[in-house]
Amino acid sequence: MQRQFLLQQGDIPTHWYNIVADLPVAPEPPLHPATNEPAGPQDLQAIFCDEIIGQEVSGERWIEIPEEVREGMAQWRPTPLYRALRLEKALGTPAHIYFKFEGTSPVGSHKLNTALAQAYYNKRAGIKRLATETGAGQWGCSMALACSMVEIECTVYMVAISFQQKPYRKSMMQVYGAEVFASPSEHTAFGRKVLAETPDSPGSLGIAISEALEDTVTHPGVKYALGSVTNHVLLHQTVIGLEAKKQMEQSGDYPDVIIGCTGGGSNFAGLAFPYLADKIAGKEMRVVAVEPTSCPSLTEGEFRYDFGDTGQMTPLFKMYTLGSGFIPPGIHAGGLRYHGMSPLVSLCKHEGLIEAVAYHQQTVFDAAVTFAKAEGIIPAPESAHAIRAAIDEALRAKEEGKERVILFNLSGHGLLDLGAYDRYFAGELNGDS
Amino acid sequence: MQRQFLLQQGDIPTHWYNIVADLPVAPEPPLHPATNEPAGPQDLQAIFCDEIIGQEVSGERWIEIPEEVREGMAQWRPTPLYRALRLEKALGTPAHIYFKFEGTSPVGSHKLNTALAQAYYNKRAGIKRLATETGAGQWGCSMALACSMVEIECTVYMVAISFQQKPYRKSMMQVYGAEVFASPSEHTAFGRKVLAETPDSPGSLGIAISEALEDTVTHPGVKYALGSVTNHVLLHQTVIGLEAKKQMEQSGDYPDVIIGCTGGGSNFAGLAFPYLADKIAGKEMRVVAVEPTSCPSLTEGEFRYDFGDTGQMTPLFKMYTLGSGFIPPGIHAGGLRYHGMSPLVSLCKHEGLIEAVAYHQQTVFDAAVTFAKAEGIIPAPESAHAIRAAIDEALRAKEEGKERVILFNLSGHGLLDLGAYDRYFAGELNGDS
Repeated sequence: MQRQFLLQQGDIPTHWYNIVADLPVAPEPPLHPATNEPAGPQDLQAIFCDEIIGQEVSGERWIEIPEEVREGMAQWRPTPLYRALRLEKALGTPAHIYFKFEGTSPVGSHKLNTALAQAYYNKRAGIKRLATETGAGQWGCSMALACSMVEIECTVYMVAISFQQKPYRKSMMQVYGAEVFASPSEHTAFGRKVLAETPDSPGSLGIAISEALEDTVTHPGVKYALGSVTNHVLLHQTVIGLEAKKQMEQSGDYPDVIIGCTGGGSNFAGLAFPYLADKIAGKEMRVVAVEPTSCPSLTEGEFRYDFGDTGQMTPLFKMYTLGSGFIPPGIHAGGLRYHGMSPLVSLCKHEGLIEAVAYHQQTVFDAAVTFAKAEGIIPAPESAHAIRAAIDEALRAKEEGKERVILFNLSGHGLLDLGAYDRYFAGELNGDS
Repeated sequence: MQRQFLLQQGDIPTHWYNIVADLPVAPEPPLHPATNEPAGPQDLQAIFCDEIIGQEVSGERWIEIPEEVREGMAQWRPTPLYRALRLEKALGTPAHIYFKFEGTSPVGSHKLNTALAQAYYNKRAGIKRLATETGAGQWGCSMALACSMVEIECTVYMVAISFQQKPYRKSMMQVYGAEVFASPSEHTAFGRKVLAETPDSPGSLGIAISEALEDTVTHPGVKYALGSVTNHVLLHQTVIGLEAKKQMEQSGDYPDVIIGCTGGGSNFAGLAFPYLADKIAGKEMRVVAVEPTSCPSLTEGEFRYDFGDTGQMTPLFKMYTLGSGFIPPGIHAGGLRYHGMSPLVSLCKHEGLIEAVAYHQQTVFDAAVTFAKAEGIIPAPESAHAIRAAIDEALRAKEEGKERVILFNLSGHGLLDLGAYDRYFAGELNGDS
């Protein structure tokens, strides 16, 4: 039986796909919080370079990928697409389960796809250093490696509690030559202010964003990089779905259900958007976003304008949100702990193009272990949300006796999250939300 | 520029290559320590199943890989072969540097190649459980996953100090459903004896082997699995070199120098033996084994009969050895801490087919960081020995202005070894041997 569907270097996509060109309605623009007027490109120039801003507001369907970025991606792309034959057998399902595996990137997840593109454009614009924040560490590692690849400097503000609990992510960034500060830090006025008030602050993503933004606007030759949520980030991730479509063609199957986990929305959109083009054109399929019950922006949030960060420094975005003041509990899928949702993914949900489902982390880890025993790969806790939904779709197909084709995105491996598996086996996740 | 050379599922080798058929001299047999007479297949039946014993003593050039093993390997094979274009550029060398990357296996190294084959043969022989030992943990994780794949039980005796220092390796084995004991343990008479004498014993590979062997011979339906050194293990690893030869053909280059790190010798032999067939047939090339200065069996050991384990329970093997009582210092490349060397690799060295070189771990980590910054992949400390030698060959080619073709085996990634990188950056490796 054919289990793997592999592409060659020449199959790395030449263009990113921009879903804005095909959406039935135009996205509503971000608003400037002081004026409530649409925020224009000029409002973003302090933190992003022009090429990135152009992509953020573009309505073009296809945007060319620079040759240098394609060459850089050839260090890990095209990524494999696998049919989970052993998982199908373990579940006794007639469904065909496929997964796109983004964990073969050197940092272990899809995040590097956009990190490399952002580093490249900033390098070309003459930028000397990029500043960013990281929570769980996947994004910081990706920016650290991307900056090393294009030879610019990288500063990462890492949420203090993660800095202490996930020392290996910090080590990885150090190997790639990045400067990493536990946030709140002494390196910004905002960080010093927080530390003066709360010397033992565990930090938060909101605080880390504020520090990275302050570092950016107070130093010449420095720009800011973001790992999810915004249009240009989702655009860069569409290489996932474009490759997957070619690979699924090799398999002879076309997916009935497409599944991805959602935090800010980038890995989900990366797989789903190129398929949504087919759905908008009339093809029948279901597209499912999976989130944690502890941070249910799509399933329980409101579709309205809200700030992108806790510190309320960003423009207002039209999105599903739990409120910018919402602080999610400390679940192990750190990458899904975001109060809002990408405006483009939110619009797709509002327009009925996608649906959403939420799971508790206990049942998510059950699925992760079932998957690892069958397929070998130990998934990241974030990606395991997609596995949980895929397994449930496969079990439903079994009940109904239907040969459903399921495709999900395995956005990353969990080799640096094994401590979370220990807590699962120790029975310590049941009480958490 | 073409950077990656990928194969398809159908390119997974159909046969393993057995170098014994082509060696200029016959290997000397293992001896029974009590009689000094050649140990026959019957001496091995207490611990290995018949199919494995047959492979251990076979002189056939090609041994067919069972279809089920090929299907199982399709969960991660064929592995990629990359040209290290960015490393070449960073070194400013005219050399072409290629590496075969075995770190894409779910456990992160080449060890799974033989683990799966051994689990398969034992399952087919009606064995219910495999017992094994592990030091650094790569081997234990591989056996745990392989047993999960063929649905038999797995017991791993893990050196106590590693059990404490590398909790993530233990977590990984637990995800795959293996039973893991810190060795010395209360589960064997030998373990209890050691604990009675030394309650806080940190354990050793020798002790762990003794416990796994005792578990095997005292329980019906249980056999023993070994991760390196023996002929059948090296045989199973030749899929690495057989794939690499096809991939190098795609590149249009033929290697002038082939490099692998050596502990017991299995990843080195896996890449090198299929090429040595060409060398024995007259092709000119250099083949280099790389070991740590702290455990220099090939560069400073004697070629003589010695025990395979510290506890002196195994037959006597003709090999390069530092003496079965030699306890190597606790370097970070735990997989290279073995007093002896595979008899087949030893014979190749003795016959002048291969050469050997030793490096201090400080300079090995220098090379690892240079490689990671250029190529993204963070190498295992073991594999980084091969990188050090490859970089030195490339720099020599630069001095000499020669376009040398270098191929090395990147046997595993270092994502579960990031603590060792921390010690390197903290300057704590210089004092160690």
